[in-house]
Amino acid sequence: TAPKINRMSLTYEKRAEMSKNAIAKQLFNIMAVKKTNLCISVDLTSSTQILELLEKVGKHVCLVKTHVDIIEDFSSDFITSLKELANKYNFLILEDRKFADIGHTVALQYTGGLYNITNWADCVTCHSLPGEGILKALNSKSNCDKGVFLLAEMSCEGNLITPQYTNETVKMAEKYSDLITGFVCQHKDTFKDPGFIQLTPGVQLQSSKDDLGQVYNTPEKVVLENGGDVIVVGRGIVSAKNPESEAVLYKDTLWKCYIKRISGKVE
Amino acid sequence: TAPKINRMSLTYEKRAEMSKNAIAKQLFNIMAVKKTNLCISVDLTSSTQILELLEKVGKHVCLVKTHVDIIEDFSSDFITSLKELANKYNFLILEDRKFADIGHTVALQYTGGLYNITNWADCVTCHSLPGEGILKALNSKSNCDKGVFLLAEMSCEGNLITPQYTNETVKMAEKYSDLITGFVCQHKDTFKDPGFIQLTPGVQLQSSKDDLGQVYNTPEKVVLENGGDVIVVGRGIVSAKNPESEAVLYKDTLWKCYIKRISGKVE
Repeated sequence: TAPKINRMSLTYEKRAEMSKNAIAKQLFNIMAVKKTNLCISVDLTSSTQILELLEKVGKHVCLVKTHVDIIEDFSSDFITSLKELANKYNFLILEDRKFADIGHTVALQYTGGLYNITNWADCVTCHSLPGEGILKALNSKSNCDKGVFLLAEMSCEGNLITPQYTNETVKMAEKYSDLITGFVCQHKDTFKDPGFIQLTPGVQLQSSKDDLGQVYNTPEKVVLENGGDVIVVGRGIVSAKNPESEAVLYKDTLWKCYIKRISGKVE
Repeated sequence: TAPKINRMSLTYEKRAEMSKNAIAKQLFNIMAVKKTNLCISVDLTSSTQILELLEKVGKHVCLVKTHVDIIEDFSSDFITSLKELANKYNFLILEDRKFADIGHTVALQYTGGLYNITNWADCVTCHSLPGEGILKALNSKSNCDKGVFLLAEMSCEGNLITPQYTNETVKMAEKYSDLITGFVCQHKDTFKDPGFIQLTPGVQLQSSKDDLGQVYNTPEKVVLENGGDVIVVGRGIVSAKNPESEAVLYKDTLWKCYIKRISGKVE
């Protein structure tokens, strides 16, 4: 393998060229064009509320992270509207499914059921816990135009991911680099290949912790110290009085961190 | 804690008395009354097919394991029929959801969305990977009449579960013994408390392996050597020409193994 350049100092445009996964390329390019590395996590249970929120924040984000299985009134109309917004505002859709079963089952969960995830999600999240079979299954259903974010680390308290688990996850991903968009992880040294994207959740403008063990960090810490490429913000924007202005605030803060990072003045 | 008796030699009736979780008690008693330790995994994508299958095999199983998210025509009518069959044939329902997210999200996935799992599933499967917050979340929604099978081991090739992961999972379960029905695991020494149930998948009358890395063992090996209490059979019955006679064959074979085990003639 070629010597790996430190991704911390590379632009998203440059890294798009280095990605083997079609969705990673596309996402890096959207980030560069829209000047945003903000992903909004829409953990709302009403499809109307989700669509209203995205109408407000869609232009400020590169990625929309969904949990379709918490939506009370999910329908194919919702998916149609969601895809229209994705086209209108040029964002990608990540279904945060956290697949974690054997390959045979995951293949059915990915393509079937009421949600038919392959039909609308550009990418999904997936645990490496069950081993390579899960990637083999997703790959067999991806037609080279889908992506997977593998969970290499988690930010919640007391999680059982060890450094060895993380290493094996990264190794597993390298075998499926056409499929893997990047990693959900917390540290800049978790992986080296600049073609992968570091998706980092658990960010708020003020650091804090919720009562179910989720820990929050600041944008500076996450982008400059920890190497986050796409930053997931949920409740910080969704629960704000004015989600649009809050999204702009996050977008600008996070983008400044990225500009500072590629300027080479950090590290 | 009290000295632990070797669960391998205890009857299911006796163990029901030792369970702190309501579903574990109920499941042990169903097993004893119906003389079956067979769980059918209904990995079918049509609700009609699932209901037809359960009409045939319901009387031979103690537990029905579902993946509702692969059913193409899921509806509230399906759930009504499923619950009627559960009452008619006296089996419990396990939704094999493999929860694997942070607590806040899992609480929503468990109680909400189109599937409304708490409404009909007696128990669910859950990964310990995200740490204790996931159990705290499920516990907060369980009203003392639901159960959780924690994945302490997996049977698929190359999975990342280590002995340490397994130990930490068991320790985590012991803190939530009112909630935990048992473990999805592969070995009799994985846990000691006879009040927990060992649910073991990956069983076929002949041992084999599928092309996505799932490994299958024989009933004798799983019950007598490995300590399986409830044995999950899927494709072995579902894909059989005559699922009912195949279910009877599995039931009788597995029950004989259990009788041999409690006779104390093994080990």
